[in-house]
Amino acid sequence: MQRLQLDPLTADAFRPFGDVIDADTSCERLTINDGRTARHHALAMVECLGAGAGGTISIFRADPVDEAFVLRKMERHPLGSQAFINTSGHPYAIVVAPAGALDETEIRGFLAHAGQSVNYRPGVWHHYLLALEQPSDFVVVDRIGPGDNCDEQLLETPLQLALGS
Amino acid sequence: MQRLQLDPLTADAFRPFGDVIDADTSCERLTINDGRTARHHALAMVECLGAGAGGTISIFRADPVDEAFVLRKMERHPLGSQAFINTSGHPYAIVVAPAGALDETEIRGFLAHAGQSVNYRPGVWHHYLLALEQPSDFVVVDRIGPGDNCDEQLLETPLQLALGS
Repeated sequence: MQRLQLDPLTADAFRPFGDVIDADTSCERLTINDGRTARHHALAMVECLGAGAGGTISIFRADPVDEAFVLRKMERHPLGSQAFINTSGHPYAIVVAPAGALDETEIRGFLAHAGQSVNYRPGVWHHYLLALEQPSDFVVVDRIGPGDNCDEQLLETPLQLALGS
Repeated sequence: MQRLQLDPLTADAFRPFGDVIDADTSCERLTINDGRTARHHALAMVECLGAGAGGTISIFRADPVDEAFVLRKMERHPLGSQAFINTSGHPYAIVVAPAGALDETEIRGFLAHAGQSVNYRPGVWHHYLLALEQPSDFVVVDRIGPGDNCDEQLLETPLQLALGS
């Protein structure tokens, strides 16, 4: 089966898909709280499109996957951003493709380290949460409101992750 | 100097001030992602009041405090909620008072464990981020937009934390 390479997650490489939330690489630093806190400001925006919509905060507790796991479909949320804030202390995998009609040749894989979180822009194709190593909690910030905000599409060419183990 | 007791952070005790974001105590559980993920759904709402406002995601990297640290003021954000998502893997202290005119006799202290995050409702008085033990990163979800969204008030009776060391 075809293996998907995982590249290191960087803001530049991820820009077509959304934002990387990572204090170690952010330049948007303000000093607040009597000099005791560095605010890495507005690293991502919570986008909630359509009347009556708002942002909500949930926790996703995900079982891990391994190299045998088969990626069979992608999903997108046309009406809202979706942030995955990594509270697990562990790395995880990200599989994305540009918004618009799904082009399987454009699928990209990234390996995020423990200190990295991401925000998908509305409409960006992504595989669901791919924890590695052990069950992992992510705090998710996404849209709640009327309308159908989840499209799923089966892959013509299923994939497996190249985890390099 | 007067010492503020820190009670364990629970959803019930924190209800006057906002929401506790904690998968271990949440009952709002949906199974998603082909059965591989438990979604603890809508544990808190992102509230952004006023025209032209939205939600933003930042990282606060906070220096820790100890028992010698003096709490001299409180702040509130009348136009928006503010969530502190604990990505540090360490406990932290929370100091809050009900919305409305600040009543120092109503100040409460809580000790949050590593798996707990919180969302302050608009207008709830709170001390700025009180990391303990070591420099700690929190992902913050709050309001961005026009208008003055931060009031500060000095305490007539400064406080120190009773950390029980």
